[in-house]
Amino acid sequence: MDTVEFSPRPDQYAFTFGGVEPVLRIDPGTALKLWCQDAYCGRITSTDDHASSSLVATELNPQTGPFHVNGAEPGDTLAIHIVDLTPARTWGASAVIPYFGGLTSTPQAPTLQAALEERTWVYEYDPLAKTVRYAARGSDFHLDLPANPMLGTVGVAPAQREVRTSLVPEMFGGNMDTPEMRAGTTCFLRVNVEGALFSLGDGHYRQGEGESCGTAVEGAMNVTVIVDLIKDDGPAWPRLESDEALCVVGSGRPLEDAWRASQVDMVGWLQELYGLDALDAYQLLSQIGQVPIANVVDTNFSAVTKVDKALLPPAAAYEGMHRRLRDAAGSLGSINY
Amino acid sequence: MDTVEFSPRPDQYAFTFGGVEPVLRIDPGTALKLWCQDAYCGRITSTDDHASSSLVATELNPQTGPFHVNGAEPGDTLAIHIVDLTPARTWGASAVIPYFGGLTSTPQAPTLQAALEERTWVYEYDPLAKTVRYAARGSDFHLDLPANPMLGTVGVAPAQREVRTSLVPEMFGGNMDTPEMRAGTTCFLRVNVEGALFSLGDGHYRQGEGESCGTAVEGAMNVTVIVDLIKDDGPAWPRLESDEALCVVGSGRPLEDAWRASQVDMVGWLQELYGLDALDAYQLLSQIGQVPIANVVDTNFSAVTKVDKALLPPAAAYEGMHRRLRDAAGSLGSINY
Amino acid sequence: MDTVEFSPRPDQYAFTFGGVEPVLRIDPGTALKLWCQDAYCGRITSTDDHASSSLVATELNPQTGPFHVNGAEPGDTLAIHIVDLTPARTWGASAVIPYFGGLTSTPQAPTLQAALEERTWVYEYDPLAKTVRYAARGSDFHLDLPANPMLGTVGVAPAQREVRTSLVPEMFGGNMDTPEMRAGTTCFLRVNVEGALFSLGDGHYRQGEGESCGTAVEGAMNVTVIVDLIKDDGPAWPRLESDEALCVVGSGRPLEDAWRASQVDMVGWLQELYGLDALDAYQLLSQIGQVPIANVVDTNFSAVTKVDKALLPPAAAYEGMHRRLRDAAGSLGSINY
Amino acid sequence: MDTVEFSPRPDQYAFTFGGVEPVLRIDPGTALKLWCQDAYCGRITSTDDHASSSLVATELNPQTGPFHVNGAEPGDTLAIHIVDLTPARTWGASAVIPYFGGLTSTPQAPTLQAALEERTWVYEYDPLAKTVRYAARGSDFHLDLPANPMLGTVGVAPAQREVRTSLVPEMFGGNMDTPEMRAGTTCFLRVNVEGALFSLGDGHYRQGEGESCGTAVEGAMNVTVIVDLIKDDGPAWPRLESDEALCVVGSGRPLEDAWRASQVDMVGWLQELYGLDALDAYQLLSQIGQVPIANVVDTNFSAVTKVDKALLPPAAAYEGMHRRLRDAAGSLGSINY
Repeated sequence: MDTVEFSPRPDQYAFTFGGVEPVLRIDPGTALKLWCQDAYCGRITSTDDHASSSLVATELNPQTGPFHVNGAEPGDTLAIHIVDLTPARTWGASAVIPYFGGLTSTPQAPTLQAALEERTWVYEYDPLAKTVRYAARGSDFHLDLPANPMLGTVGVAPAQREVRTSLVPEMFGGNMDTPEMRAGTTCFLRVNVEGALFSLGDGHYRQGEGESCGTAVEGAMNVTVIVDLIKDDGPAWPRLESDEALCVVGSGRPLEDAWRASQVDMVGWLQELYGLDALDAYQLLSQIGQVPIANVVDTNFSAVTKVDKALLPPAAAYEGMHRRLRDAAGSLGSINY
Repeated sequence: MDTVEFSPRPDQYAFTFGGVEPVLRIDPGTALKLWCQDAYCGRITSTDDHASSSLVATELNPQTGPFHVNGAEPGDTLAIHIVDLTPARTWGASAVIPYFGGLTSTPQAPTLQAALEERTWVYEYDPLAKTVRYAARGSDFHLDLPANPMLGTVGVAPAQREVRTSLVPEMFGGNMDTPEMRAGTTCFLRVNVEGALFSLGDGHYRQGEGESCGTAVEGAMNVTVIVDLIKDDGPAWPRLESDEALCVVGSGRPLEDAWRASQVDMVGWLQELYGLDALDAYQLLSQIGQVPIANVVDTNFSAVTKVDKALLPPAAAYEGMHRRLRDAAGSLGSINY
Repeated sequence: MDTVEFSPRPDQYAFTFGGVEPVLRIDPGTALKLWCQDAYCGRITSTDDHASSSLVATELNPQTGPFHVNGAEPGDTLAIHIVDLTPARTWGASAVIPYFGGLTSTPQAPTLQAALEERTWVYEYDPLAKTVRYAARGSDFHLDLPANPMLGTVGVAPAQREVRTSLVPEMFGGNMDTPEMRAGTTCFLRVNVEGALFSLGDGHYRQGEGESCGTAVEGAMNVTVIVDLIKDDGPAWPRLESDEALCVVGSGRPLEDAWRASQVDMVGWLQELYGLDALDAYQLLSQIGQVPIANVVDTNFSAVTKVDKALLPPAAAYEGMHRRLRDAAGSLGSINY
Repeated sequence: MDTVEFSPRPDQYAFTFGGVEPVLRIDPGTALKLWCQDAYCGRITSTDDHASSSLVATELNPQTGPFHVNGAEPGDTLAIHIVDLTPARTWGASAVIPYFGGLTSTPQAPTLQAALEERTWVYEYDPLAKTVRYAARGSDFHLDLPANPMLGTVGVAPAQREVRTSLVPEMFGGNMDTPEMRAGTTCFLRVNVEGALFSLGDGHYRQGEGESCGTAVEGAMNVTVIVDLIKDDGPAWPRLESDEALCVVGSGRPLEDAWRASQVDMVGWLQELYGLDALDAYQLLSQIGQVPIANVVDTNFSAVTKVDKALLPPAAAYEGMHRRLRDAAGSLGSINY
């Protein structure tokens, strides 16, 4: 398997999906070993760094990419298998940012209330124990939490000639912020433009569902993925497959509409996999679906509809692509950064 | 421990929270062994029974109760520990009902589109294997799924002199439809009227998160609970505690507002339990919260904010009430129906 | 025409729709001359009275009624023609109340932000000029505004055995807070219980659309209505007719669902009046509908779909009931309070 | 005054805001006489043309422009005064399009229901009577309605490097679909990129508030505007001024958030114009605001907060720009197309 390494210089960060020239052209079946800057663009490094003074509004959530996948055409399915996510620093940071997050008014849903106080937390990451340390700022309370490295953002160039900031989750993927986007997961995205032009970033060393305050334990990440292509059959919304589960991520507002998008697409997926009619698939989903909310803080909210594979007969989604990439990942040997 | 058995006659079903005379008066610390009719009021018994012809709109979701808890006053906390939930029949049923459910327009959010076709599924319940059998109607596809018995509906009389149908989830509990309401869980509800007047029902042999089509595997249920009382400290929204987790259930529309209600209350709960200030609790929740959506189909939607106790230091919520009731449940001996 | 006068004693205020014994029984065709207390229950009388210290949470929005209409049965249409609304005081008051209103977080949609500062404005009402005087509190700015007296709240007892606070707008009417509810308007409501049990209150000397801060220029009101009954044909949502317009008021959350409810019902009304099929009525409404939002602050939001009668051929809705009651109003002679 | 005429060739239509080279560079103070193609890109010309077979998904809502305004820099205020809107054809068309519109499920908020039947209505436009003729398709019913020519879409290039389809309303303006965008109105937009790059289109011969079915009486339009520039002070959301009213257009989902955006910006505008503090402006708006909903059908919904100037003391918004452009419009003489 071809393996390509790429670590962007700061002037190569992509801040949009679409509208950016590819940094590399790769063939389907290529493994990529990448480094991703954190969502703050590296501008928050201590508890004294606050969002309003340290961040630059036009330089948030830098992506590594985009990558042009040779042969990818609109309507195709891009498969991105996440082989490994390893924190690239020994610390990550989370921040309460004025008028951003789930438990505050925002520019999209403003009120006349004052903003919450700004505050930054730095989490030490212990690479041996694989934990991050929460330290309260207003009292003496510490907690070691298991790291669950994930990517907040994976996406392709949008349809309809659009260019969207990397802060947005949508049909093209983007800033979905779901903990399901972890090592061992294959992400299927519909290709909208020639070459797909996918990029990824927004490493989280740990995140809760909903990403309540708007930021996870954000940190630079070493990322290994294998990229492949299926001609046609691009799904309407991002689909994820792991050894354990099938997921669809819907994004929009209000949250029930994000949920509906993920549910209707999962009804369709269950129909495809098991030959059910729409009502039978709807019924089955009603009794087996899980709904671990992804984010309620971004420009669009993201809801995940998840199905436990253990409850279902075996089925080879996308002609067994997940299994094939997972096996190929094994052949990559140990990941060294 | 006092143990009281009660099985309502059909003329004793309660269809509202509030507005109904108590069927029994009990002291705090009493165990109740109850039987609950299914949410269809027993009117769907085969795949030929359809909602529009079989159901009676004013007789849906019958509750067992209400029970007057001696000494309960507005502002107190009612604790209901679910000791056991055992299906009372060897089958349950789920139905697609016209203009009801998550993937259809509804009277609250109408469109000009035609309703979905009506369809009923009957699931055989195997009490030994503890499975329910899904059988597709439009093709030859069967699946045995583990039963996860739960109560869709647990609530007290509302505040502000209101009387609400048993179909509504709200601050007083009610039709929250969360799979977290299972044996081993203690539900804490704020008392709004003298005696609390709690009731419960809506047994589900199995339900997915979101309850997509609007109905679970609905079935009559044998229910054992222990009821207790804490003077004052009634929570704004229903709180749940099990050995594994703390949960708050928020209800409302749109779904993000149900989520916000559950989140803000959980921030408060974490502050109480660990002496954190609001921002520190918000931060902690952002990294450890789970959000398994309860229902996106009822008059209000219900979102659950859940925290894994294993991630946190031990803490005795409500003075250790859950632990105490759980231990007391052990002394009840085996449950025979 | 029978004319009945009624002014409630404080112990006769109704704080709910449903759940209250009627204060009077009247025959269809009766005129009522009523007095309504203001929504604060008379507890705010100066700019020094603030909501949090002066108001009693269980005594808000007192209604005059309920009135039992002889012969009214579930499914019938109650017609309430507003003959006259005359402010009963020479001042009204509006207040910013903590965590209540459209531009603040609320208990239903909470955030962690601090509440807005409390503030009360007293508007002098000039009965000759028919103006209310706005006086800024933080600067020296005054403005005389035309009074537009209206009733925030008109409703009947709910269906499904429910009892709802007078703060809620719903299918049964209630606290819709639309400026369209003014003298000259006939309100059509579906009867849900024997006798209809309607009540009204919440006089506003003036209110903008949306009722942004949550309170209008609230004041006690002298109200003259004529009440009549149409056997059957009760509309799903409250309908209003004036000489100039037809309106439907939908209530719910999010606001687009309140809008959808009002739109779908208006599509139906246009079908009935002009013999159109659903798509033709939908098309016509798309080009002639007005949508003056009622409230974005109550437990449910209320959206009005309004059609200018001048654009349409004459049609006799409800067998010409509005015209008949309007003519009857003329025979009442001048209104003296 | 410089007057420039421009009518795009089909290959010059712009389908996005941003991402397109300017068709012309103009100085502030220039008058433009433009022609705009209809939103269907001219592909619906009879009642036999249906959306699903006639329309091209990537060629909807063609814009005339973009125009580069010399000297315009990010943060400035672009002023576009609409001098005249004259229908360029003797007919317009409206269509019910599958899964598009306000009273159907949509790809953003999908259900499992079948789409509504497709149907197209052609309205004859009478240039002398200035009426459009509605003709029902399912029955024999006709109606002449006054034309109210307006532009559905006016916008500038977005911030944050984004490119958005012309179907979207947002902070940059775009497809707001408000009947307030008519001759005599000045539209103020914040400049996001050098040159502003504004474009306009989507002529409606008549539209109701909400644009219920998703399409107005769509038709090609002759448009005369005068363009001017104010250095700095660009508003957060599009502001409109006419001789009669001030408006702010907020866009987003759910509809209450679009409303909140328009309300908070209007609170700020009233503060600026009358020296009020935020609470006093909030109070004033609560009693004088009108809320004529713009659209509940586009990717974002748009709500208008409107204030009647007749209720307020005179004030010169943007240093009297509206008055100045209105007077300048008079000097253009009669508009001949």
